[in-house]
Amino acid sequence: MSNEGPFSDEGLPRALWWDDAAGALRLIDQTLLPDRCEVIACATEHAVAEAIRALRVRGAPAIGVAAAYGLALAARALIAEARGIDGTAALERLRDDATSLRATRPTAVNLAWALERMLAVADHYLAEGGSVRELPDALLAEAGAIAAEDAAACAAMGRLGAELIADGDTLLTHCNAGALATAGMGTALAPIYTAHRAGKRLHVYVDETRPVLQGARLTAWELARAGVPITLITDNMAAHFMKRGGVRAVFVGADRIAANGDTANKIGTYGLALLAHAHAVPFYVVAPRSTVDLARPDGDAIPIEERAPDEVTTIRGVRVAPEGVRVANPAFDVTPARYISAILTESGIARPPYAESLRTVAEMRTPSRAVEVAL
Amino acid sequence: MSNEGPFSDEGLPRALWWDDAAGALRLIDQTLLPDRCEVIACATEHAVAEAIRALRVRGAPAIGVAAAYGLALAARALIAEARGIDGTAALERLRDDATSLRATRPTAVNLAWALERMLAVADHYLAEGGSVRELPDALLAEAGAIAAEDAAACAAMGRLGAELIADGDTLLTHCNAGALATAGMGTALAPIYTAHRAGKRLHVYVDETRPVLQGARLTAWELARAGVPITLITDNMAAHFMKRGGVRAVFVGADRIAANGDTANKIGTYGLALLAHAHAVPFYVVAPRSTVDLARPDGDAIPIEERAPDEVTTIRGVRVAPEGVRVANPAFDVTPARYISAILTESGIARPPYAESLRTVAEMRTPSRAVEVAL
Repeated sequence: MSNEGPFSDEGLPRALWWDDAAGALRLIDQTLLPDRCEVIACATEHAVAEAIRALRVRGAPAIGVAAAYGLALAARALIAEARGIDGTAALERLRDDATSLRATRPTAVNLAWALERMLAVADHYLAEGGSVRELPDALLAEAGAIAAEDAAACAAMGRLGAELIADGDTLLTHCNAGALATAGMGTALAPIYTAHRAGKRLHVYVDETRPVLQGARLTAWELARAGVPITLITDNMAAHFMKRGGVRAVFVGADRIAANGDTANKIGTYGLALLAHAHAVPFYVVAPRSTVDLARPDGDAIPIEERAPDEVTTIRGVRVAPEGVRVANPAFDVTPARYISAILTESGIARPPYAESLRTVAEMRTPSRAVEVAL
Repeated sequence: MSNEGPFSDEGLPRALWWDDAAGALRLIDQTLLPDRCEVIACATEHAVAEAIRALRVRGAPAIGVAAAYGLALAARALIAEARGIDGTAALERLRDDATSLRATRPTAVNLAWALERMLAVADHYLAEGGSVRELPDALLAEAGAIAAEDAAACAAMGRLGAELIADGDTLLTHCNAGALATAGMGTALAPIYTAHRAGKRLHVYVDETRPVLQGARLTAWELARAGVPITLITDNMAAHFMKRGGVRAVFVGADRIAANGDTANKIGTYGLALLAHAHAVPFYVVAPRSTVDLARPDGDAIPIEERAPDEVTTIRGVRVAPEGVRVANPAFDVTPARYISAILTESGIARPPYAESLRTVAEMRTPSRAVEVAL
């Protein structure tokens, strides 16, 4: 990836990219959007972990990529500090660093997936006799590959999903599963961007997505910048507009998809899926294969991150509830597979029953072959 | 009503009361809650209209009472300005004032109902040969009666609704239908207060209720002050907690109930009713008889107030969305009767089919007799 700035050639924001000259991971500090589009540099794994925890970078695919770069930065620091370290010790230290990075957000499986992949590469590289001193470069290359694959996956999901969108459609989305959530053009928003670029006339209802307002602050910002007509609504308005007959489909992302199709995503997704079901509106989950957790049979045991109460009681620093009030703040919920019309990955579209279709797409290797299968 | 201050003998907030010494309607400026509990005085109908429009006083029953006092204040100003005015001219001017007051909020029927009642009293008083100079006193007395009846209705709804609540129940409510929304102990919250005072152990999930946050700012404040255990949640968390099995019933208020039971209430109510239905959770609407609009066969044509976009794009003065973004801001939605388990009024509990049961309770006159009928 180049280090030219926070917008791609197509004008979409870039959530994060490697800056070779600075030797650091650059990312848009998303906590400041939409007021300011400010780029920060993370030169250590600690800075990356802080950025993930504080939601400066968020979105399951993007935090996977960020964590991968974080582990490469950890390797660099390790080699600089302990010059004579041997491979076994280095790998042990990296496993600890990966554990710390993984603990920043428990729900999205992409984080664990990316870190496992990085550790496997380190293990393989050293086992093959690779030089410990060049381990950071090997890991940096792998992080770059993860980012590039994510961008390609986004584009593939965009192509597949755009087929589900007709000229004149009104759609609805929740949270931010756009360019800001990935290393590419997004997951749930990729079909929307692709259809829009193909000249289809669209209108998108954007849920503001309390408590952190990723819809109002991020999705509204990136869709409007791209010229996609939107209407911002509060989360509790979705049912009203579905009843009025104005919504043709719902597109959301995912943080973790169990083998049976049960899907963990931003809090509010489950309710939205029930509302879509009640109004016979198709409900599409769009996520890369790395989001599918085949080891987990269903959604029951997916860990749900509970975040700080002040995300609910204060909004951008302003208090909106009485002092001392008890708050619940689950960041995610689980949507049972029966409310999901289809799950779109870069390998193809899985339809119910998911037990088989999800395994088929999740185990595919090359997007190009997969798209053919789906068609 | 006395003018002792913003809390009743039972410790509940008083949304509004007549201050004889000041010759003004006092009300808690609810836009400042929960940070400050500040009482303002409205000495003219214009001040009352501004307070209703700006949501300093809100909640269907409370704005009915406020508008009634507003019309009494209008009569006082009219007599002071035009000392020799005759009854016919005075009534004509009052009708204009009522039209202005009615226009402040279009959805709640209580506003129109209270103003019609005030005009009918003025008409009758003058037709019976009452002195024009004493018309303001007659109207003030009628506004006081409306307020007192509302308080009695709240208490009656509380008694009826408390029977539906068992010891140990977890409940959920949306917006604010509490003391702050009425001249008494509330509508939807009255059963909760009554059950709590009877020693039943309760826990209440409080939807924050975007965009104006009446749940977070008002309901959380008044329930917590009264010692009712609550958990504040964002609107989009309700489904998650229903699925977890923790919600035994939903209680909401109403702004207008059509003859068939279709109910207009705060935006988000319809979605919540669908979610309750999907989880087999009873969904109760609690509202005084004055909320029932028998002239309206169903909810299709209930006017839905569209409020300013900045309620969505800014929260307590802080911007949360990009400049210039298009916003929808319907303040209410309509819940079809089939998703409502029961409608509680001061005259009794109406159950489906509502066409008959609602007419029976709406046409009753005395709460005491009515409660017997319901039992």
